[in-house]
Amino acid sequence: MKKPGDGSNDRDIEAGMTFEKPRPHSRDRYAAFRAITTRFLDNDVYGHINNAVYYSYFDTTVSGWLLEQDLVVPQRSEIIGLAVNSSCDYFDSLAFPDALEAGLRVARIGNSSVQYGVGIFKQGASQAAAQGLFTHVYVDARSNRPVALPDRLRQGLQSLLRF
Amino acid sequence: MKKPGDGSNDRDIEAGMTFEKPRPHSRDRYAAFRAITTRFLDNDVYGHINNAVYYSYFDTTVSGWLLEQDLVVPQRSEIIGLAVNSSCDYFDSLAFPDALEAGLRVARIGNSSVQYGVGIFKQGASQAAAQGLFTHVYVDARSNRPVALPDRLRQGLQSLLRF
Amino acid sequence: MKKPGDGSNDRDIEAGMTFEKPRPHSRDRYAAFRAITTRFLDNDVYGHINNAVYYSYFDTTVSGWLLEQDLVVPQRSEIIGLAVNSSCDYFDSLAFPDALEAGLRVARIGNSSVQYGVGIFKQGASQAAAQGLFTHVYVDARSNRPVALPDRLRQGLQSLLRF
Amino acid sequence: MKKPGDGSNDRDIEAGMTFEKPRPHSRDRYAAFRAITTRFLDNDVYGHINNAVYYSYFDTTVSGWLLEQDLVVPQRSEIIGLAVNSSCDYFDSLAFPDALEAGLRVARIGNSSVQYGVGIFKQGASQAAAQGLFTHVYVDARSNRPVALPDRLRQGLQSLLRF
Repeated sequence: MKKPGDGSNDRDIEAGMTFEKPRPHSRDRYAAFRAITTRFLDNDVYGHINNAVYYSYFDTTVSGWLLEQDLVVPQRSEIIGLAVNSSCDYFDSLAFPDALEAGLRVARIGNSSVQYGVGIFKQGASQAAAQGLFTHVYVDARSNRPVALPDRLRQGLQSLLRF
Repeated sequence: MKKPGDGSNDRDIEAGMTFEKPRPHSRDRYAAFRAITTRFLDNDVYGHINNAVYYSYFDTTVSGWLLEQDLVVPQRSEIIGLAVNSSCDYFDSLAFPDALEAGLRVARIGNSSVQYGVGIFKQGASQAAAQGLFTHVYVDARSNRPVALPDRLRQGLQSLLRF
Repeated sequence: MKKPGDGSNDRDIEAGMTFEKPRPHSRDRYAAFRAITTRFLDNDVYGHINNAVYYSYFDTTVSGWLLEQDLVVPQRSEIIGLAVNSSCDYFDSLAFPDALEAGLRVARIGNSSVQYGVGIFKQGASQAAAQGLFTHVYVDARSNRPVALPDRLRQGLQSLLRF
Repeated sequence: MKKPGDGSNDRDIEAGMTFEKPRPHSRDRYAAFRAITTRFLDNDVYGHINNAVYYSYFDTTVSGWLLEQDLVVPQRSEIIGLAVNSSCDYFDSLAFPDALEAGLRVARIGNSSVQYGVGIFKQGASQAAAQGLFTHVYVDARSNRPVALPDRLRQGLQSLLRF
């Protein structure tokens, strides 16, 4: 099935708008992968995974990695990552019951903030069906004020740096 | 409770990163409003509405307006809006059981694409707690190819244009 | 549109199974009401609110009432309600963008447990489109062991008793 | 961590209520299994998978099996399964990032209705953490009237019968 944007600029030319034209990432842009099983209710009335659901994949990918690396553990850690920005480019439709893989990378590390990148791949696909960015500011769990990234967290994040 | 970014640039200075520094919109940036009731499960383990949930508010706001104006009706319309991009800036935390209002505007109209803007306000608040952009390309429901926006849809969208 | 179970026993006769045949509740079976706005993604691929979503309405109704009455406040209360059982009978389809009302009652109060009843009504409808039961056992937030219902909670619950 | 109902009747005795006391199923009660990955937002503010989320696992398990067996395919099949009843007993807490398995069985087959059973197991666990029932009535996709189960569907369902 032909999808808008499949290997052509038709969409943008027709649209008469200047899009920033992102290109789907290949798998090697990502440093760690996580399996994601889709759910019946991920599909909306159009029979494809709803645009909002991708952000729950992003969140799961970032938070899951931090938790499994014992770097940020909800209800126990002294710091919390607050979302300040997120975005997603959608290239190809996915649908339940597709099996997915989410690729994770770190795009930028600041003093108290981190920009994560997540790519959503159909299992085994070489190109992302969607990819996004997700910026966290880390704050003290009590005062809610930004804190410098703890050393151990910073080192973990550096291992995921991909540009 | 002091929140990061509350009336200061501390966050960005501390972060040592150049953020695009969006400012929360006021209500007059939006052309139509929709009440949204929050749900217990909108809150994540940190006790605030999860970042991904805002996109379900966006989707509900855009799709709800189109449906109620009889402009795009799932399972009946000849065109479908496919999400090609979405993004959100988060300024202030919200939490169940807050009552919310979502403001809707149209930021750009192309030949076959539309960029919507949605602002999420705590009921009665003058400034958005979060605001986002959401780009649809309209395609033929059968061929899945981009189509020029039908006249009636274009006219409806123009009534929501706010820059 | 004719729906299964609309004013007849056809469903059960055809099915050749003995259903417990619940009857839709009228509004006066419920003691408190809460407005619920539906969301685009509440609809599944069949264009109706998905069966699982009703339980998020139930949870929102029970937890919202307890929170707004200052009886059980997550992250602050010394007790937590753990779900031990839930059930729902579905009578009529609902769909986004329907506006809904959820009726709340208390069906049984034990020493440490409470059975809530929730009815989901299309706004203004006299009969429930779906109705369910939801049993909580209240436990100490630290030890996770059942506790006798605190007096103030018990009194609040008694005000919602309807059989 | 001691959980209510763990190997004792304390809960029910303390509660002073007659519960139907279901026992957690073992894996051999189920005929087919499906891997389910949990998501960050499956956890509610208490840090455990929210009671409503289990129903999205049930729905995914039943609909996924029917789809993958090519028995009921949304937007293509001539019949649709409408939920008429669902229920769940919860025994043990689960939490993101637990990996889960959902067991599927068919408990009863009527003329036009089917009662499915679903058990949710922590990966590798011998006993269900939660188990539920889910009754579908199959209706004609156009007329919305109950239909006798097609032969091929009936045969598929019979292969999952477990009591």
